[in-house]
Amino acid sequence: MVAYEELSKEELLQLKSDLEAQFEDVKAQNLHLDMSRGKPSTEQLNLSMDMMDVLRSDSDLVCEEGVDCRNYGVLDGIAEAKQLLADMMEVPKDNIVIFGNSSLNIMYDTIARSMTHGVMGSTPWAKLDKVKFLCPVPGYDRHFAITEYFGIEMINVPMTPTGPDMDMVEELVSTDPAIKGIWCVPKYSNPQGITYSDETVHRFAKLNPAAEDFRIFWDNAYGIHHLYEDKQDYLIEILMECKKEGHPDMVYKFSSTSKISFPGSGIAAIAASDANLADIRKQMRIQTIGHDKLNQLRHARYFGNIHGMVQHMKKHADILRPKFDIVLKTLDKELGGLGIGSWLAPRGGYFISFDSMDGCAKAIVAKAKEAGLVMTGAGATFPYGKDPKDSNIRIAPSYPTVKELKLAAKIFVLSVKLVSIDKLLQTK
Amino acid sequence: MVAYEELSKEELLQLKSDLEAQFEDVKAQNLHLDMSRGKPSTEQLNLSMDMMDVLRSDSDLVCEEGVDCRNYGVLDGIAEAKQLLADMMEVPKDNIVIFGNSSLNIMYDTIARSMTHGVMGSTPWAKLDKVKFLCPVPGYDRHFAITEYFGIEMINVPMTPTGPDMDMVEELVSTDPAIKGIWCVPKYSNPQGITYSDETVHRFAKLNPAAEDFRIFWDNAYGIHHLYEDKQDYLIEILMECKKEGHPDMVYKFSSTSKISFPGSGIAAIAASDANLADIRKQMRIQTIGHDKLNQLRHARYFGNIHGMVQHMKKHADILRPKFDIVLKTLDKELGGLGIGSWLAPRGGYFISFDSMDGCAKAIVAKAKEAGLVMTGAGATFPYGKDPKDSNIRIAPSYPTVKELKLAAKIFVLSVKLVSIDKLLQTK
Repeated sequence: MVAYEELSKEELLQLKSDLEAQFEDVKAQNLHLDMSRGKPSTEQLNLSMDMMDVLRSDSDLVCEEGVDCRNYGVLDGIAEAKQLLADMMEVPKDNIVIFGNSSLNIMYDTIARSMTHGVMGSTPWAKLDKVKFLCPVPGYDRHFAITEYFGIEMINVPMTPTGPDMDMVEELVSTDPAIKGIWCVPKYSNPQGITYSDETVHRFAKLNPAAEDFRIFWDNAYGIHHLYEDKQDYLIEILMECKKEGHPDMVYKFSSTSKISFPGSGIAAIAASDANLADIRKQMRIQTIGHDKLNQLRHARYFGNIHGMVQHMKKHADILRPKFDIVLKTLDKELGGLGIGSWLAPRGGYFISFDSMDGCAKAIVAKAKEAGLVMTGAGATFPYGKDPKDSNIRIAPSYPTVKELKLAAKIFVLSVKLVSIDKLLQTK
Repeated sequence: MVAYEELSKEELLQLKSDLEAQFEDVKAQNLHLDMSRGKPSTEQLNLSMDMMDVLRSDSDLVCEEGVDCRNYGVLDGIAEAKQLLADMMEVPKDNIVIFGNSSLNIMYDTIARSMTHGVMGSTPWAKLDKVKFLCPVPGYDRHFAITEYFGIEMINVPMTPTGPDMDMVEELVSTDPAIKGIWCVPKYSNPQGITYSDETVHRFAKLNPAAEDFRIFWDNAYGIHHLYEDKQDYLIEILMECKKEGHPDMVYKFSSTSKISFPGSGIAAIAASDANLADIRKQMRIQTIGHDKLNQLRHARYFGNIHGMVQHMKKHADILRPKFDIVLKTLDKELGGLGIGSWLAPRGGYFISFDSMDGCAKAIVAKAKEAGLVMTGAGATFPYGKDPKDSNIRIAPSYPTVKELKLAAKIFVLSVKLVSIDKLLQTK
């Protein structure tokens, strides 16, 4: 392969002409393909169908503590669901509070509570002149949407192959008391699939924040969402590390079963120190009488225990692996060595992150759309939807079929090539 | 019956001695009875058990709009659940947004959003020096807990047999721009079982608030929770009335299926004008990807339509009616004409409200506890837990069996009598 940059203007124009012909061919097929969203496929949803039969009209619906799950009561989760999610989140059962169906909702509520009531007695953030959050980029658009909604200033922190740039994080967190948090997806990150290294986690646990109410928002959304049996990432458990370093209250950890059982009908939890959970429960008992215990019981009985859940995740992996493989193979084969884009091969999670030449991402997404392929909007992986380099594109291969993905990947690489050639021609 | 007040000191002392003997007899039985909470009984929960079989592993889980309810998508509720709850709440389907399992949670979120983001563009309440709410009393403790949690000043408004004192409501709402809301349980109110009269609802719809962001918080928790087939209260639908009066945005209406299907595992909704719902959805799409659609589908398919739900409520009524009857009969028989307490006979809802002589409620609740009967804490029906007259006690007859209620009612009237005699003796 010869890098595009080394081609002459004439060679580029000839290449462009060939690629445009190919593009027109694909376009003529009137395709409707979607690689925009981290949605499980129907095949994956089918894996959990037996869950629908776990609780029946003749079932005993009393949980281990003797509470009838059909009635009011139990604010923060039934014991068996706490145990399951505690094991999933690698924390003690007593450091878990179970909420409703959405970990995003827990994160939102956590920020909302901090705005109006502060954190463990601190000044409510709404009463401060300025509140800032660190945002490793590229990152998860829905995180950024929450902080933007509350008028929190977001500061980009570049991601590295081992996690956020920790020099920058340490410097900012230790000197600026307006910085109250950092958004992290520490394992199989959204969108890059990066898992924070041991050193990164240690450095997080050792942070000495200028703000006493600084919290790490540790969204471990893909903790057990491996793609391979033999190649798995390991992430050090952050609650224990923070405790060891004398900062037990510095972290909130979030997770849910959305991509384990059913998205939108799973159960979600927060894990944190005793002191943090006491603070959270104070609000929670004002907000609700309790969350859906029947769904907690359904999940606990269906999976049985963490081993059952891990076995279940292997079935998801079997479905997802070929999808990631086809996209990665196409990228390697079609774009490898051309110098017009880079990407990582994740070992888990739901996304592949693609970095084009600077200033090309929006044009690539637009080009792909011409041929019927919907991608996540360029810029979405950055706060305020603004990618300063206009280069990052999130690829979500989970929902389409393998056959659709072959076509989608083809359209994508064609779009990358065509837009990159136009970019290069500008300076030839 | 001779009123206690007309008895001489000697007669009172003799009576006290007789009653104390009876009380000791009951106490010796070491009872554990609970009339404290508006919880459906096990028998009521059993009514909905077939709901557990509605969605099975071989069911089609695609809703009317063609969305697979097992996956992400649909922010504000699936069409069939919207239709069911719209009919239940007597509003058009497009004026409904479905949330999670708890209407209390929706009310909390509504206040929280108003604090940080205002109402349809108004100044966020957290930025105002003072925010006040009107609280018809006696009322629902969890309403008052929300406003207290957010530092909102609560102003008591006396309930009358036709609803809140509307002269006072009109005067305060039209003159004080700090008043941003009023808590209402307009049908079979908690705790009195009062339904607002037509005139009261009309006067609500005609309010001219000093604050543009004033909202009526209309918690229609017991809209179809009748006790009798032949004696039912009717409540005018407030959204339409407000619209007719040119104030379409002045009301939020809340409801849930908590006491229809399973408390804590039902579905809840808000009904409001298009403009209010647009404002609410702005926040909602930041807060969550969507609520539990499978549970929405489960409810929609189980009840079929509002007729099915109404038929279902008759079964609840059949279980609840004898319970209310035994308590009311005991009150009539044992306390009628004694001049030491008053109460209303509700036609629906979950509570009976008892007003003792001034300064006796706390002592009565404490006395009952001596004999093993737990009542709702005296004062709970007032903001800040402070009943200025110390006279209101909420009786919740739904959870105990009829047999238990006989004993509980007996303990209660004995406690009322004994405490009242002590009170009267202080001035004899």
